[in-house]
Amino acid sequence: MTEPIILYDIPGKNPKYTAWSPSTWKTRYGLAYKGLPFKTEWVEYPDIESLCKKLGAPPTWKNDDGSPLYTLPVIYDPSTKTVVEESFKIAKYLDKTYPNTPRLIPDNTAALQSGFRMGFELNVTEPLWDLVVLAACNNLNPRSQEFFRRTREANGKKLETYASPGEVHDMALKKVETGLKKVSQWFDHNDGTGPFVMGDIISHADFALAGRLMWGKVVWGEDSEDWRAIMGFENGRWERYMKALEKYEVLT
Amino acid sequence: MTEPIILYDIPGKNPKYTAWSPSTWKTRYGLAYKGLPFKTEWVEYPDIESLCKKLGAPPTWKNDDGSPLYTLPVIYDPSTKTVVEESFKIAKYLDKTYPNTPRLIPDNTAALQSGFRMGFELNVTEPLWDLVVLAACNNLNPRSQEFFRRTREANGKKLETYASPGEVHDMALKKVETGLKKVSQWFDHNDGTGPFVMGDIISHADFALAGRLMWGKVVWGEDSEDWRAIMGFENGRWERYMKALEKYEVLT
Repeated sequence: MTEPIILYDIPGKNPKYTAWSPSTWKTRYGLAYKGLPFKTEWVEYPDIESLCKKLGAPPTWKNDDGSPLYTLPVIYDPSTKTVVEESFKIAKYLDKTYPNTPRLIPDNTAALQSGFRMGFELNVTEPLWDLVVLAACNNLNPRSQEFFRRTREANGKKLETYASPGEVHDMALKKVETGLKKVSQWFDHNDGTGPFVMGDIISHADFALAGRLMWGKVVWGEDSEDWRAIMGFENGRWERYMKALEKYEVLT
Repeated sequence: MTEPIILYDIPGKNPKYTAWSPSTWKTRYGLAYKGLPFKTEWVEYPDIESLCKKLGAPPTWKNDDGSPLYTLPVIYDPSTKTVVEESFKIAKYLDKTYPNTPRLIPDNTAALQSGFRMGFELNVTEPLWDLVVLAACNNLNPRSQEFFRRTREANGKKLETYASPGEVHDMALKKVETGLKKVSQWFDHNDGTGPFVMGDIISHADFALAGRLMWGKVVWGEDSEDWRAIMGFENGRWERYMKALEKYEVLT
């Protein structure tokens, strides 16, 4: 029997969805879509660096002061005894190692998928960050919460100020709406060939986008006003989109 | 004999390259890549709106005051008696109407190509605009020059200030370098499958990117310091890229 792949992920307090991080959701969705058996090992923020060093997963980024930044997702695949970090690299690894599963990055689309992601990150993620950051922090367990607040507030800006109730909040929500409208226009270029970024083909780009939206769904909760607002944009377009990918929302 | 497609384009003064507009270059490259016979009708800026109205090409955008904005490229295809505006729509039209020519937008990639474009526009085009805008204006014929300056300076900012010699200029060039480095990282995700956005397959995304770079090449001139700087980034990566697409730089 094949041993399940281990997905290292950061736990949150939402009782329905322990997973909340947009980055790790990309990999979680991808593993589920490929039908690969996997199980989660939950890691609190202050433990990520030592875990990565123990596994031999290199840092994926740099802190503002130039020091290495270790991030999740990281996977360990016992079948090949391989550790892989960073969601795009993991997607490529899984496509290569399990060629008989559905592809996350169809041939010739790696650069397109990367640029597409940057397009929506700049349009959607930046204002969405302002909206969710406080709730994202509050959704964490105490040790991670302390770590998250301390590192995110190193710039001197309190998490409470990113979307203060009233005008600042409403402006951020408006920006998310405008950003998502742009992304919709890109989808519309597919001329009704299917609901996904690549029309009738699911790909990593969908999981990057849906993973980003899961952020709000999990840290606010599905009944929250902001989540309902986003799901209501453009006559429920994003609600239908999330629904179409729901079967890959697997928590194991 | 098939009559050539007419491409409406804005003329500039560079004696080697009359075409300079990034938007119309996309279509120009695309027509050449498809091997479709075409010829240019040159249109000065103040005449674009009346031409579009005469042809029946709708506005593609809005001015800041909400009034309709008519833009080029527009094509007229005498074989089908069809007028099409906006480069992406034109690419789709050409793919559909001439199915035996190489595809500009391969199946399932329309949304990806649109998002990719937004990704590099935000990273590269915004700082590049600051660098080229004055030269772009000066490269125009007098009537267009007056129109361009008047409309672009409606925000109260003189074209001369976007990249004033010295620190402001150098900062803009640095931003272009940083932006292009990001785009390079996307290309690198193709793992050496070819020099183009889609690896070994040329597509509209290449013409959108190369057309954007042509902006500098034409309005500054190929021997200019800024163009040489950009062509020197990352050991000549973008010079090789432009070279790989050079055979489609067709002026007719």
